[in-house]
Amino acid sequence: MTDFGFVLLASDGAARRGRLSTAHGKVETPAFMPVGTAATVKGMTSEMVTSTGAQMVLANTYHLMLRPGAERIAKLGGLHDLMHWPGPILTDSGGFQVMSLAELRSINEEGVTFRSHIDGAKVTLTPERSVEIQNLLNATVTMAFDECTEWPVTETKAAESMRLSMRWAGRSRDAFVARQGYGIFGIVQGSAYRELREESAKALTGMDFHGYAVGGLAVGEGQETMFEMLDVSTPHLPNDRPRYLMGVGKPDDIVGAVARGIDLFDCVLPTRSGRTGQAFTRQGTLNMRNARHAEDRDPVDQDCECYGCRNHSRAYLHHLFKAGEMLGPILLTAHNLTYYQDLMRDIRSAIEAGQFDEFANSVPRHDKAKQAHR
Amino acid sequence: MTDFGFVLLASDGAARRGRLSTAHGKVETPAFMPVGTAATVKGMTSEMVTSTGAQMVLANTYHLMLRPGAERIAKLGGLHDLMHWPGPILTDSGGFQVMSLAELRSINEEGVTFRSHIDGAKVTLTPERSVEIQNLLNATVTMAFDECTEWPVTETKAAESMRLSMRWAGRSRDAFVARQGYGIFGIVQGSAYRELREESAKALTGMDFHGYAVGGLAVGEGQETMFEMLDVSTPHLPNDRPRYLMGVGKPDDIVGAVARGIDLFDCVLPTRSGRTGQAFTRQGTLNMRNARHAEDRDPVDQDCECYGCRNHSRAYLHHLFKAGEMLGPILLTAHNLTYYQDLMRDIRSAIEAGQFDEFANSVPRHDKAKQAHR
Repeated sequence: MTDFGFVLLASDGAARRGRLSTAHGKVETPAFMPVGTAATVKGMTSEMVTSTGAQMVLANTYHLMLRPGAERIAKLGGLHDLMHWPGPILTDSGGFQVMSLAELRSINEEGVTFRSHIDGAKVTLTPERSVEIQNLLNATVTMAFDECTEWPVTETKAAESMRLSMRWAGRSRDAFVARQGYGIFGIVQGSAYRELREESAKALTGMDFHGYAVGGLAVGEGQETMFEMLDVSTPHLPNDRPRYLMGVGKPDDIVGAVARGIDLFDCVLPTRSGRTGQAFTRQGTLNMRNARHAEDRDPVDQDCECYGCRNHSRAYLHHLFKAGEMLGPILLTAHNLTYYQDLMRDIRSAIEAGQFDEFANSVPRHDKAKQAHR
Repeated sequence: MTDFGFVLLASDGAARRGRLSTAHGKVETPAFMPVGTAATVKGMTSEMVTSTGAQMVLANTYHLMLRPGAERIAKLGGLHDLMHWPGPILTDSGGFQVMSLAELRSINEEGVTFRSHIDGAKVTLTPERSVEIQNLLNATVTMAFDECTEWPVTETKAAESMRLSMRWAGRSRDAFVARQGYGIFGIVQGSAYRELREESAKALTGMDFHGYAVGGLAVGEGQETMFEMLDVSTPHLPNDRPRYLMGVGKPDDIVGAVARGIDLFDCVLPTRSGRTGQAFTRQGTLNMRNARHAEDRDPVDQDCECYGCRNHSRAYLHHLFKAGEMLGPILLTAHNLTYYQDLMRDIRSAIEAGQFDEFANSVPRHDKAKQAHR
């Protein structure tokens, strides 16, 4: 069994080319994790996810604890068996969804009590229970349980929230059961306040996590502020541990974050966009529902090697979306995930070649892409 | 280019083992055609359809003429290119859907004028236009345009309807543009009246079609009556032409029809059932939403080699359907189509081995399967 580890293979400025080793295999970084909320990347078989080039996926503690249930997944052999995904799986801690989806009941030092958005059942989530659930799911990477600070927020409230999350991070770290090839990541919080971000990063590194995430960003603060928060956070994180920017983002967000030393990403953007007819391409964003595609025999992206681009025209995708056919979301999700994986592959090559800045400038901004996070 | 042709390779009683040759390849019969209504077998890539064992698919003239339009499909290179399905495609004539889906305006000797169920546009369909559309779609097999008689119906009305369909069959045959490897099938009508079925079968054989369908069945008359109508129709159809029972059916319907000399089938049952959580198995029908599957680590069908059965448990399928995840319909559609293709393969082997009756008795009845036709 491999030890959980991270090696830096190359760097170009602050951009890092690395390799994560886990009990479930290796991940070349920078890497993008497709989101498999309910133990499925929506509309994709695991074979299709593999064919996009993805090596690691994310699943959601909050959704899975409510349905089908953590103990049930454990009985069924864990997430890898259930999803037929032998590679590494990272699970979030549930903190973000408790805030955004659940009917929030109360939060105190101990944890959060809320009602399920599925059946109204009362549930309590604490750092210890979140880590236990992630263990039951057999997550390769467990995330510390944190409070996701609302946006916007005063500095006083942001400080209180961040400090609570740091105490929860300590309890999460303590609750984590060490297993060879498995790891737990802490999460830097502090909203858009530089001093709080620094304080948080320093507090976490003292707890010796296997990796460090930057959370609470991409919640409305804008790209400039997000990059500023990375600039003040990453210098305090240890060089020999992977860094993960949660819930981000558009291609240019990813490129900018890699330039600031981030190694791992996840975002619902390629999958959610794929289901609604929005395509990512090397020439920018296309809305496949647009009438101008109705007789276009070109593929969605000439330079893409995904199944849809190899075999179907824009006109067919247009037809499928207009007719409400499932195959539209299936093909376009696979395409968008392939676009993201190609982007990560090209980022890795550019760092290796010492040409990251040049490559970064060539990535289109996809300004028309609707913002869509976790 | 191959000529359109049918050879009988073996027979066992009235059951026939044959091979259809077309411009787009061969089809081993008895064969089941998955339904690709709007130029897509719902939820399946063409690669997945191929992997179920299907060699020929059906598409719907009515749906495609309305969206994206026959002339547009012709501009895009025809159905095969659009769907990325290089194999044979049979298109129905639109008659059935005009009756079941359109707001019917008027029917006369010339044809049918109706309003589109999509945008209310007024459309006229005649035998000549139906055949022209199927030509524009590049259908390997064109179906004659017919009136699908309502059920139940008096003998007088059934006779009038059938005789109109026979005149339309003649006009369809005349309108068909002969191309090497392409064919047109006539359709036997006559509701549940033996004499009318005989009259219809005899009338059609005089028109020298490339194949003969039996239509207007599986509309509520019951299996016994359906088989009786086959018993009086097939003896009048030429032995050297393929016979197609439209819109049928459950596995035991198919087995009984093969026993009566039918070679080709289509039905929405495996695909529609797959989308709603109903699985066909060698042990009968399973509803994947049923709570008894929640912790069942067995595959849907132990003896099935489909992607889902090789890689996932009933518990996972149950979870996907309960959570409303697209992957449930995707996996179960592929499974059900595989079940149907395995059934056809086993039927072919049984006929070759002269053991068709024995095999027929071993096929479960799937009584719980909801009836669902075209």
